[in-house]
Amino acid sequence: MFIRNTWYVAGFEHEFDQPFIARRLLDTPLIMYRTSLGRYTAMDDSCPHRLLPLSKGKRVGDEMQCGYHGMCFSADGQCTKVPGQTNIPSAAHVKTYPLEALHGFVWIWMGDADLADTGLIPDVHWHSSPDWASSRGYHHIEAHYTLLNDNLLDLSHETYVHSRTIGNDEEESIAGYTAKVSVEHDCLVRAHREMPNIEAPPFFELVIGRPCQINRWQSAIHLVPSINLTVVGVHPVEEDRTAARIGHVLHLLTPESETGTHYFWAFVRNYRLDNADLTEGIRKASSATFDEDKEVLEIQQQQMERRKTPVPHVAIKLDEAPIRARRLLEQRAAQEASNPRHVVAPPALVPEHSFAVLEEA
Amino acid sequence: MFIRNTWYVAGFEHEFDQPFIARRLLDTPLIMYRTSLGRYTAMDDSCPHRLLPLSKGKRVGDEMQCGYHGMCFSADGQCTKVPGQTNIPSAAHVKTYPLEALHGFVWIWMGDADLADTGLIPDVHWHSSPDWASSRGYHHIEAHYTLLNDNLLDLSHETYVHSRTIGNDEEESIAGYTAKVSVEHDCLVRAHREMPNIEAPPFFELVIGRPCQINRWQSAIHLVPSINLTVVGVHPVEEDRTAARIGHVLHLLTPESETGTHYFWAFVRNYRLDNADLTEGIRKASSATFDEDKEVLEIQQQQMERRKTPVPHVAIKLDEAPIRARRLLEQRAAQEASNPRHVVAPPALVPEHSFAVLEEA
Amino acid sequence: MFIRNTWYVAGFEHEFDQPFIARRLLDTPLIMYRTSLGRYTAMDDSCPHRLLPLSKGKRVGDEMQCGYHGMCFSADGQCTKVPGQTNIPSAAHVKTYPLEALHGFVWIWMGDADLADTGLIPDVHWHSSPDWASSRGYHHIEAHYTLLNDNLLDLSHETYVHSRTIGNDEEESIAGYTAKVSVEHDCLVRAHREMPNIEAPPFFELVIGRPCQINRWQSAIHLVPSINLTVVGVHPVEEDRTAARIGHVLHLLTPESETGTHYFWAFVRNYRLDNADLTEGIRKASSATFDEDKEVLEIQQQQMERRKTPVPHVAIKLDEAPIRARRLLEQRAAQEASNPRHVVAPPALVPEHSFAVLEEA
Repeated sequence: MFIRNTWYVAGFEHEFDQPFIARRLLDTPLIMYRTSLGRYTAMDDSCPHRLLPLSKGKRVGDEMQCGYHGMCFSADGQCTKVPGQTNIPSAAHVKTYPLEALHGFVWIWMGDADLADTGLIPDVHWHSSPDWASSRGYHHIEAHYTLLNDNLLDLSHETYVHSRTIGNDEEESIAGYTAKVSVEHDCLVRAHREMPNIEAPPFFELVIGRPCQINRWQSAIHLVPSINLTVVGVHPVEEDRTAARIGHVLHLLTPESETGTHYFWAFVRNYRLDNADLTEGIRKASSATFDEDKEVLEIQQQQMERRKTPVPHVAIKLDEAPIRARRLLEQRAAQEASNPRHVVAPPALVPEHSFAVLEEA
Repeated sequence: MFIRNTWYVAGFEHEFDQPFIARRLLDTPLIMYRTSLGRYTAMDDSCPHRLLPLSKGKRVGDEMQCGYHGMCFSADGQCTKVPGQTNIPSAAHVKTYPLEALHGFVWIWMGDADLADTGLIPDVHWHSSPDWASSRGYHHIEAHYTLLNDNLLDLSHETYVHSRTIGNDEEESIAGYTAKVSVEHDCLVRAHREMPNIEAPPFFELVIGRPCQINRWQSAIHLVPSINLTVVGVHPVEEDRTAARIGHVLHLLTPESETGTHYFWAFVRNYRLDNADLTEGIRKASSATFDEDKEVLEIQQQQMERRKTPVPHVAIKLDEAPIRARRLLEQRAAQEASNPRHVVAPPALVPEHSFAVLEEA
Repeated sequence: MFIRNTWYVAGFEHEFDQPFIARRLLDTPLIMYRTSLGRYTAMDDSCPHRLLPLSKGKRVGDEMQCGYHGMCFSADGQCTKVPGQTNIPSAAHVKTYPLEALHGFVWIWMGDADLADTGLIPDVHWHSSPDWASSRGYHHIEAHYTLLNDNLLDLSHETYVHSRTIGNDEEESIAGYTAKVSVEHDCLVRAHREMPNIEAPPFFELVIGRPCQINRWQSAIHLVPSINLTVVGVHPVEEDRTAARIGHVLHLLTPESETGTHYFWAFVRNYRLDNADLTEGIRKASSATFDEDKEVLEIQQQQMERRKTPVPHVAIKLDEAPIRARRLLEQRAAQEASNPRHVVAPPALVPEHSFAVLEEA
């Protein structure tokens, strides 16, 4: 079950420096590229003649040439050449999808193309803003994207899954702090948790640059169907909250299939922007953290398939935010099913000065 | 099709020195361990919250802690802790199964727990007796357990499958000696064969310590559903039968699934008990022999699946004991299906002085 | 869907120097060998007792002995020995298939054995003629044999698939020359193309021995269901056509299953017969060329399965010969379905002096 009338991340903008990218999105194999004029295009990765993936052929100028019989297709999916004949069969074209670059990502709309308003792209401007520095990467996860949503909306798992990275070894250090869960605009879930005066876990030692006691908070923000943002704020207890180190961790999920997810992530921060070592250190630490998630998520997917049972099988208090998000997703799917032209304008993920608002929370 | 009201081997007792063992039995993934008080426990290897195998978590004292959100489960399967909340959901428990150590094995009862009488555990006391020495091991076989029963009840295959180990190269050396087949108590099959004055095959050279002519006998003993014992006796022709070297080879089979079997084996002998080199030599030779069986059994399983045909497809005289055992198994399955509280007390596998009785046979 | 009343290649004759060959043909696992008296035999590769492949046993004289219990089978599939008993069960035999050596190949008939007239074997005598020299090999292709027929009947793919071997880098060098397609006797398709005064591609440089301008022609000849011959002729433009270097490329396809094909090939030539380096050079070049085909064919098969669509999905002019061949195949299958004794006598693939006739064309 996929929501179609929404923008998903198709790739990082920098990936489009290559001649083309072949990637399966929403169970559809696509070939995507940027033309010499800077236009982005995505089309079905299959020659209509004998189904050979166009990505097995080669790019010739701004066209793709099939590697079997040399049929060529322009960036709008139209066949422009059939060797051995002058006319072009009317059925010789491939389906294209709206593709747009924004905030350092390239976004795809796989629903009704008429509705592909770029104003509906979620605002994740921090990723390409000069006021923030980004550490980014990609994980391929063999699990349904809703399991990733669940995982990102319940950060208490840090204690157990990430004890060596962003969590603490102390039992219940996260779950012991209650998360305040709220729903906004029928499409956004927030779960906020304050953790005052705790010992800095290894990751935050890296952020601050030394072992210390910290005030820490985290907001898990989820936009239906699969945009996730974790706002993490820390400052040494002896400092003021306005001096907090803020990280906006983007977890932009695109379904590959019913059992696989493309996980594009970026840890963007508002401190020590020019410190390339820190950028790389955060990248490595984040990547190691998401490796740990990957293991848990994939086992969970396998277990669901083996036992033919959805999760949570038995719900606990920590599932509050995940369950709310799943209800919004089901509601959105039902709306799209009954009205194929249903679209939702995404609200702002974070108020202008997140740390101030969070303090108020 | 599994018989459930019976004791199966879950593992060797020595395996329980580890914190826990994860193993699939009768198509059920289990986690098993021995508590600090010496109690054995087996439970479903799946956290009721999000289905993560408990074996992916860690043992904390006598409890298992899930590696995702830290829920804890006691040795009786009850949840004792849910981080983030004080109450325990009533559904937060996992199923347990009776588990008992006896004769150096740990036995599991996966049927009606009320009926799990330890008096029903088959008597294989030689395995842990000071009067016998054991060479033991484990093979995982990708074949239904009935194919292993068949194989163990028709030892004539030695000539062809084991020509380099326990068989002879001479054609028909085993099949040429007729096996006397008998059925006892509707649950036990014996196939006994005497082979007087033959050249000692390599394995029995090892047993006796030199090349020679031997009198040899073998009894294949099968207890429904999957306990097998091979009694092998040999002595040089110039010696008396009371001086025979007797081996009791235990082949204790536990279904892993419809297409896989756990094969726990032990060659226990009544001679040269303190000879550690012989113990190791027999272990190596037995392991090599069962490697040969494994190959034949797994190909047979694949062929059955590919051709959708049961075996034997065409029966021969050598199938007499296997076919009798299969009939007893079908009868037992039918009894259990019509009466879920049906149990069978296993008779003794071997009379007190096996070699004397065998001589009489 | 397989045509059964026809001769397929089971192997090269030289392969039968080994004790036996195990190979799956028309979804049937077979064991094949040549007896000491020179008779060829093919039988089901499965012992009727417990389904063990006879090829897992050993050849004893002119019989096969099963590796499990030693049952023996003669070259006519009859059981001759069952260890442990003197009588042979009436069901203890395996099905055999007519097998004949001709032209350096061994041919099998898997339809009604009464109709297996060796006069129906296609005439590919060049392969074993002293007037021709052969470079041969084998490819296993994970694709339905009709995809190979399609590929061999539309040689325009050379430009794109084989640009580094037999094709030219110049776009459309092949497709630009129209192929004349004809159908003969309801079972044979010819697609002939003349390419005068072109630059010799790498392969034909090898044939002629130097870079030059050539006159080139090619005839793709297809005999239903899966015998293919490519006649390729070249001569330097300054020479006469009667001096042409002619290659008869045999592509003899035998279905392994619905998704796999045995591809026996031989490039036989009428020039520089004694040049062993050229024979080996052609073998290597052909093998590399068919590696390229293999890749395209297997991807095409996967795409058909994934998209549940036959090919061509959109037909182009180059599909004329492939589509005609597919229609003949469907017609032949319908005939065999309505009359299980339907057979077709194959016409000659090539007139006596192919180059002269081709010139007239």
